[in-house]
Amino acid sequence: METKRGGFTLPGEAGYEKLTLELCRKWGADCIRDSDGTTLSDEIISSGIPIYSTLCMVRSVNEYAKAHPEHLQRNFLMSDPVMAEGDTAEIFPLKKYFREQITVCPDDDVKEFWEVWDRTAGVLVPADSWEWDPERECVTVSGCAPYHLYTVSFLCCRIWEEISMYNHITNGWGDREHLMAVEPRYPEVQKVLLSFLDEWCTSHPATKVVRFTSMFYNFTWIWGADERERTIYTDWGSYDFSVNPVSLREFEREYGYRMTAEDFINNGKRCATHNPPTKKYRDWMEFTGKFVREFGRKCVDIVHSHGKLAYVFYDDTWIGVEPWGEHFEDFGFDGLIKCVFNAFEARLCAGAKVGTHELRLHPYLFPTGLRGEPTFAPGGHPEADARRYWACVRRALLRVKIDRIGLGGYISLVEPFPEFCGEVERIADEFRTLRALHEAGAPWSTGIRVAVLQSWGSLRTWNCSGHMHEHPELPLNHIYEAMAGQPFEVRALSFSEVAERGVPGDIDVIINAGREGDAWSGGEAWDDARLLEAISTFCARGGGVIGVGEPSARRGGFRHFRMGDMMGVDRETGETICFEKYRYEIRPHFITEETKSAPRFHNHTAGVYALGADTDVLLDGEDGIVAAAKRYGKGRGVYLSGFTYGSENARLLYRAILWAAEKEELADVYMTDSAEFECAYYPASGKLVIINNAPQAGRVTVKTPRGDVTAEIAGEGVAII
Amino acid sequence: METKRGGFTLPGEAGYEKLTLELCRKWGADCIRDSDGTTLSDEIISSGIPIYSTLCMVRSVNEYAKAHPEHLQRNFLMSDPVMAEGDTAEIFPLKKYFREQITVCPDDDVKEFWEVWDRTAGVLVPADSWEWDPERECVTVSGCAPYHLYTVSFLCCRIWEEISMYNHITNGWGDREHLMAVEPRYPEVQKVLLSFLDEWCTSHPATKVVRFTSMFYNFTWIWGADERERTIYTDWGSYDFSVNPVSLREFEREYGYRMTAEDFINNGKRCATHNPPTKKYRDWMEFTGKFVREFGRKCVDIVHSHGKLAYVFYDDTWIGVEPWGEHFEDFGFDGLIKCVFNAFEARLCAGAKVGTHELRLHPYLFPTGLRGEPTFAPGGHPEADARRYWACVRRALLRVKIDRIGLGGYISLVEPFPEFCGEVERIADEFRTLRALHEAGAPWSTGIRVAVLQSWGSLRTWNCSGHMHEHPELPLNHIYEAMAGQPFEVRALSFSEVAERGVPGDIDVIINAGREGDAWSGGEAWDDARLLEAISTFCARGGGVIGVGEPSARRGGFRHFRMGDMMGVDRETGETICFEKYRYEIRPHFITEETKSAPRFHNHTAGVYALGADTDVLLDGEDGIVAAAKRYGKGRGVYLSGFTYGSENARLLYRAILWAAEKEELADVYMTDSAEFECAYYPASGKLVIINNAPQAGRVTVKTPRGDVTAEIAGEGVAII
Repeated sequence: METKRGGFTLPGEAGYEKLTLELCRKWGADCIRDSDGTTLSDEIISSGIPIYSTLCMVRSVNEYAKAHPEHLQRNFLMSDPVMAEGDTAEIFPLKKYFREQITVCPDDDVKEFWEVWDRTAGVLVPADSWEWDPERECVTVSGCAPYHLYTVSFLCCRIWEEISMYNHITNGWGDREHLMAVEPRYPEVQKVLLSFLDEWCTSHPATKVVRFTSMFYNFTWIWGADERERTIYTDWGSYDFSVNPVSLREFEREYGYRMTAEDFINNGKRCATHNPPTKKYRDWMEFTGKFVREFGRKCVDIVHSHGKLAYVFYDDTWIGVEPWGEHFEDFGFDGLIKCVFNAFEARLCAGAKVGTHELRLHPYLFPTGLRGEPTFAPGGHPEADARRYWACVRRALLRVKIDRIGLGGYISLVEPFPEFCGEVERIADEFRTLRALHEAGAPWSTGIRVAVLQSWGSLRTWNCSGHMHEHPELPLNHIYEAMAGQPFEVRALSFSEVAERGVPGDIDVIINAGREGDAWSGGEAWDDARLLEAISTFCARGGGVIGVGEPSARRGGFRHFRMGDMMGVDRETGETICFEKYRYEIRPHFITEETKSAPRFHNHTAGVYALGADTDVLLDGEDGIVAAAKRYGKGRGVYLSGFTYGSENARLLYRAILWAAEKEELADVYMTDSAEFECAYYPASGKLVIINNAPQAGRVTVKTPRGDVTAEIAGEGVAII
Repeated sequence: METKRGGFTLPGEAGYEKLTLELCRKWGADCIRDSDGTTLSDEIISSGIPIYSTLCMVRSVNEYAKAHPEHLQRNFLMSDPVMAEGDTAEIFPLKKYFREQITVCPDDDVKEFWEVWDRTAGVLVPADSWEWDPERECVTVSGCAPYHLYTVSFLCCRIWEEISMYNHITNGWGDREHLMAVEPRYPEVQKVLLSFLDEWCTSHPATKVVRFTSMFYNFTWIWGADERERTIYTDWGSYDFSVNPVSLREFEREYGYRMTAEDFINNGKRCATHNPPTKKYRDWMEFTGKFVREFGRKCVDIVHSHGKLAYVFYDDTWIGVEPWGEHFEDFGFDGLIKCVFNAFEARLCAGAKVGTHELRLHPYLFPTGLRGEPTFAPGGHPEADARRYWACVRRALLRVKIDRIGLGGYISLVEPFPEFCGEVERIADEFRTLRALHEAGAPWSTGIRVAVLQSWGSLRTWNCSGHMHEHPELPLNHIYEAMAGQPFEVRALSFSEVAERGVPGDIDVIINAGREGDAWSGGEAWDDARLLEAISTFCARGGGVIGVGEPSARRGGFRHFRMGDMMGVDRETGETICFEKYRYEIRPHFITEETKSAPRFHNHTAGVYALGADTDVLLDGEDGIVAAAKRYGKGRGVYLSGFTYGSENARLLYRAILWAAEKEELADVYMTDSAEFECAYYPASGKLVIINNAPQAGRVTVKTPRGDVTAEIAGEGVAII
């Protein structure tokens, strides 16, 4: 395997110039970046190597923020419920929140924005029945119904930007200044930010790439006062932080109605990305997305006017920047950088319509990892971490082209870890080799076009909300991870577009994977009969339908799993316990031909039963069916009771998709004889790349149209033949 | 313990006169009965011992039934769904059913009663778009939407009475005539039945008690054509079999609207007792119940006019005869006989407003038991079975008075089992001893009044639908079983009566135990805000609330468990995964003081979490909280994630009820030091009765106001001190 330069971004660090430049050579880096907490010295900047500079604008004007607390970002929060013992109730809405993050802006008109709800009766309390005492930070509600529970929804003002807060507290930064996020909806703030950016560009002539981190609104992250509930709420995708007096009023002018506190508070459950959005919430997202793009474009234009490139980091302050969103190109970004733990994140990055696709690999060059385990610290094995993360992400790189990789953090930390430096050198070479194969021509693919059917459509392609480790319970995260390394073309379709326009003609297989009522399963989207009609028609005419977990689950219809007749199963929710269930026997099947034992899905759905003799039950357990298949008209349906990513399960899914697409013959094409190995064939180069995803070495045989190919591959290694 | 005569009903059998009379003496029987399959000889009838005769009227006039198939009973059934490949679909609605049970009556107007549904779109197909071909037994639907699923709902005619069918097939009765159930709504049938009954009474002068089995409509029991789905549907409480052309038309005249097939078919899910009833279905029950009572009263009057007593057997053909129904007394029955597997069935019987309460004990004198295991056959141990069943039922008899017990079946079978005969002698003596204690005066009770909150109110007190062994998954069945042996006064309240009138002033503790959406948890009953308001008020003012499983679960409110704030917990359904859950520690508590290890509830609900610091979490497991408690205003709430009856779990529930009622001090009153033992104190007699519910002997100490009492008690034995 040949080593080349390029496609690698290295974090530099003042005081470690020699190391920086040495590793720059060793790893073939063609770019040096700063990181949160590091600066670049003049020696590095003037080394002639292009410089990436990170910039999070909304927390970059702290002097202005301190002088203008009324221009800080806001969002709606709800108090804990308080029971009215008599006809009044006192509620201290801020009580449960972390006061270093949350306060109330005295300038806000509480009667305009706040709401008091009687949660027992489910009714809004008239505004003249309560008063806010800013001194006591107390809302007094009068005319209460005794023993009812009352809550206050209030517009809070956030006085510590969340990423600054997290890094500060986690790393014990002591007296270091708390950064605050300003609200760019205020024209004064926009002026300040644009002028800051322009001056910044002028004062950083060596910077070739401005890497935005990211735009203006962080994912929602609310902290609690109680250590036992430190993180009250975290949602990678929610638009809560874009709420403020200006936007609420402007929205009303534009859409003709006012978004109220309850539109965000939603009975205390908020509007998480994992739940189907309301029409109002979608309006709010559209409204906010448009603003982020328009003001974001102004920022990008300034960067361009200085002859620099504008990249965006898909992380943290990324609301409205969704790379698969319909209007992402409008920003005019030159590149997208995605930090990756998993293969599906690499597919997310690779598919975005932008010039340069870059991955930020793990481990970060920090002393400790995500869960506090040692990385670049005594006891750490960063070389093993790097190899493991790379093996995980590499699966996707067999299928799609990525332009660049890189690292982040403190380069100084790697010095005592020469094995890590060697590992990264190997990884960088392997990356460039794969990239070169893609550049020569696309790899062989099954040609099967898979659509994931969910509430958000293309906006949330190749991810649910955030990373796998945040919500490993979601089967769709695992389905994405499995497919990320497989030769399928994957896109997302929303329930509403399918209901309105039917399944597009170029889709072979539809996957619906979620839990009853969630955004991934669909919930009330299934009340629109056109949706089931469209899916049934698609399937009956020859399409494949795969349901996972509680797909299409919705109470009140003919089946609890609305797609049940296609999959041959339904779930016992307690409503049909008087029906005896069909007594099936397990049948051998193409899908389970390589399955050694019933897969363990950690998110298995209990109580799934067969609809009748036409259902092929493939796998089951004590508490119901695990896998089933059925023919439906000219099409096919498959059911899996859950899904956990792993080699064997990924293979099971691969075969399920082949079967659903009626492409069983492809099971003999570029298929490894062991699920731990995967491969890709690049016709233009005539090369077969085989990867070993397991830590132990092994022997593998690949079926190809020109006969079997056999190789011995080291643990997490690769063979190119 | 003294032996007395009386309170015992013995099954006699022609040809075994000596044995019959001998056992009559041995067991102290004061009555001889016939059974299904046995007759009494003249020698027995003229022995001077009073005779019970069993009578199931609707299947007693088979000659008439054969001559008048148009007067057989009907009900609605649904075909399997059929996909329309083109614009027509052919559906054979009878195909999936057992044709010896199900047919179609040619006299019925199919267009008046039948319905064809497009289940994909959820719409009714106009009657002029389909035709029934009785020759082919096929419905042809035209104008179909391609690929939609269609079903036919049809009025079937049942040609084999279900109990006759079951006994016939199970016992291999070969050529024996199939009995058919006539429909008493037809005036002609009423005339035939009343005249039959009158003649029967005349021709049976020795009969002292006519035991109706029971009235006119069997519980719903639908059989399938496929051996792998032999029993398609069984519901002990549903009113399906009271549907027929006459009743449908009469209902329309009376209520002003027509009940359609879909009102019973309900999207193919039918209207099982375990689901919350619709208003229409309740109307139908009221309408049918009134008829059953009115025509039943006529039958009872005939029996009385012959100087005989009328008892009713609560089993099989019992629809409309609910003993806790508001109007049960209107029948004018002299006695109620309940076959009992479990203690809660004894409480159900004891509480009915009727003169005589009699229990039919198990085992029945049949060669084999319910699951085909040998009873009075080689390998059987009927004496052990009798002891086990008795120990199970006896718990209830410590708390409430039962007037009579008895057996059923073939007395001839007991001859080779002298140990059984001895065991029954002992049981009969024990029964009479307990009865005498009750007659002297009621036992000590906690005085705590518990209300079970569910959809049906008093109609279904002390049971859900049928026996424990039919639906052991229901936590409420197990809660009933535990409470049946405990010194509480138990009644049932419906959601609607509580919503309308609040919790009655004489209730101390409310229990809601069920699964999301079922009749026991409440489902949409919780959409009526008055319900939560009433329960909250009750609790805040000092009442106790116990939730089990998925109590008060309803999507779309402030809490998924609507009573969550009282219990301190809620359930993660996937809707709130972005909220971090409060990190509790297990706290010691009065309720769990005697709990040795986390109880295993076989119907445990996963994913239950604590709402905050005010929640006392008492027990938990890997997948969530198992038991929790919370103070709420002046009241208290308790949560259990499920419930399985067993000694330790029963004790846990006992303590939970004491705590919820704020009666912790009663834990030291008539409490045994081991959960396997229970006791009752009878102040009027000054007697303490201690029972050992376990099969092994043991030593027990009982705390009493006059000091500790200790006893050694044999396995399943009793001590009276």
